[in-house]
Amino acid sequence: MKQWEDNIRKVTPYVAGEQPKEKDIIKLNTNENPYPPSPSVQKKYSEIALDRLRMYPDPEASELVTSLERYHGLDKGQVFVGVGSDDVLSMAFLTFFNSDKPILFPDVTYSFYPVWANMYRIPFETPFVDDQFEITVSDYHRENGGVIIANPNAPTSLALPLDRIHDLLRHNQDVIVIIDEAYIDFGGESALPLIDRYENLLVVRTYSKSRSMAGMRIGYAMGHPGLIQAMVSVKESVNSYTMSMLSISLGTASLADEEYFQKRIIQIKETREKTKNELENLGFFVVESSANFVFAKHKTIPAEQLFHELRERKIYVRYFKKQRIENFLRISIGTGDEMKKLIETLERIIT
Amino acid sequence: MKQWEDNIRKVTPYVAGEQPKEKDIIKLNTNENPYPPSPSVQKKYSEIALDRLRMYPDPEASELVTSLERYHGLDKGQVFVGVGSDDVLSMAFLTFFNSDKPILFPDVTYSFYPVWANMYRIPFETPFVDDQFEITVSDYHRENGGVIIANPNAPTSLALPLDRIHDLLRHNQDVIVIIDEAYIDFGGESALPLIDRYENLLVVRTYSKSRSMAGMRIGYAMGHPGLIQAMVSVKESVNSYTMSMLSISLGTASLADEEYFQKRIIQIKETREKTKNELENLGFFVVESSANFVFAKHKTIPAEQLFHELRERKIYVRYFKKQRIENFLRISIGTGDEMKKLIETLERIIT
Repeated sequence: MKQWEDNIRKVTPYVAGEQPKEKDIIKLNTNENPYPPSPSVQKKYSEIALDRLRMYPDPEASELVTSLERYHGLDKGQVFVGVGSDDVLSMAFLTFFNSDKPILFPDVTYSFYPVWANMYRIPFETPFVDDQFEITVSDYHRENGGVIIANPNAPTSLALPLDRIHDLLRHNQDVIVIIDEAYIDFGGESALPLIDRYENLLVVRTYSKSRSMAGMRIGYAMGHPGLIQAMVSVKESVNSYTMSMLSISLGTASLADEEYFQKRIIQIKETREKTKNELENLGFFVVESSANFVFAKHKTIPAEQLFHELRERKIYVRYFKKQRIENFLRISIGTGDEMKKLIETLERIIT
Repeated sequence: MKQWEDNIRKVTPYVAGEQPKEKDIIKLNTNENPYPPSPSVQKKYSEIALDRLRMYPDPEASELVTSLERYHGLDKGQVFVGVGSDDVLSMAFLTFFNSDKPILFPDVTYSFYPVWANMYRIPFETPFVDDQFEITVSDYHRENGGVIIANPNAPTSLALPLDRIHDLLRHNQDVIVIIDEAYIDFGGESALPLIDRYENLLVVRTYSKSRSMAGMRIGYAMGHPGLIQAMVSVKESVNSYTMSMLSISLGTASLADEEYFQKRIIQIKETREKTKNELENLGFFVVESSANFVFAKHKTIPAEQLFHELRERKIYVRYFKKQRIENFLRISIGTGDEMKKLIETLERIIT
């Protein structure tokens, strides 16, 4: 043991879904979009003069920030962009959760929240979701150092109705409340209309799911300009230039084609409903999903067994070996063809 | 004053060199490379199938990491990559500087170091460089929580000889020593050969200067696999996917064309020496530079005045209104033509 080892920060990192290197995998384990990014992104890509790479990008990413403000009908200074919503959320934890009181989030939720809390030494408590995985908002009616809720929640896929979010905000006006809306384009009601009323509300989105751009790493937060400015200052104290020239340009281009965007979302929702029915026919209980994945439990066969049997047949889904959800699989919604193969494979495994 | 404002992290952010939006600026203020990235980068760019963006990138960025290990003749597990060397350094501060003792770095150096230290609440002390801006290594022969040295140093452009770095390491074996080699390709001797002997040595590099890829945000650290693994764990606790698919691909492609790389470096060094002579002829004192910029002081005209007069004439250089260096300009080395215009303009201002 070297003496310097004492001062290395010890952490338990987040474990992301596997990114297999083989090609013929049906990959339903990280909630990626099965469709390519908008043609407007491809068009922009082919127009970019790569010589510009020699220069630093705009540290404020103004082109992307302004486009997002316009897209969402917001004022100047209401958008913060980062390297995926994980970067945005990490920065928000660092910026806003500096109280001695514990922050609150559900026990079953995005498993990065406790990792960031541990990383930044933020105390936290995790009120239980109920047996139907519903968040009980009254659990959050108590003194705390901040609140973060994923809506729709992951891995449960359940949406929290807007009046419940509203209630949460009414009871939490002294702390920052973050609503992580990574999946909101696939269902549920956004809290975005509430940011004018609640200066302490931060709404976070990502390009990784509905915009088919996980590979590009773009996420953003929306809120009162005071909150956004605080995040910008923290960002400028970590890395002046987080967004590459290409993220800024291609992220902006993605917003230009609303029709393509909406069409793909409808397609994914249709595939989701079809998949849900077929899974139910195979004896699964499937949580009512507002996301681009379903959370499902078979009536007799353990999830871990199904996970391994699917994996052997080159279909990757997500399995969490964790209390309360260890009998569930989280299955991303792929193309119609991919889901057909999933259902056929499950049929063979089950019967 | 809202109650939640109490818990917002208050920071004094780093101030980067200006990124003007106008086009006809001669931009010598952020040490960018005046030449485009290697043709191998352009070639790779045109071959990438953008459909892949829908998927998450490889969280380990293996393609890039492995290429860098091979390029530098290192073993597996000796390279960590990040979103520019700022991201890498920020992560290194967070990972390694967790002692109660102050970390040490020179008073005149990269001004992001105190910003990260403040951000992560790391105590620090800054031994003075001498009147010639030389680092006195014996100042670092005392108990501390870690050391970081930029070599060549910025904004001074001075290199610290390798035997001095070696001495620094011999006297600091209980803490992590980071050598920030952002400018090493332009001069000085790298500490890289010492990483096998000193498990506590981390060497940091960037694609932003010598590789003409500032716009892409790529930096990396090299060291003992134990150090790299500690950084990976911290990274995985902040953001699983920091490197975009395009950073990974284009960063790898840049390493393929060594001839282009070396040629451009020689060109920049030649322009630097020519510029140094011409500045001296105009009455400047110019520090002996091992970087892609020069640090220069005029014998009679204050730097601040020159900075403003150049700026009015659309030539941007960097000026730091800081004790000890307030009479110096930091001037990036541009193309031969750009430097010719700089010299002509200075001539007109001065005479």
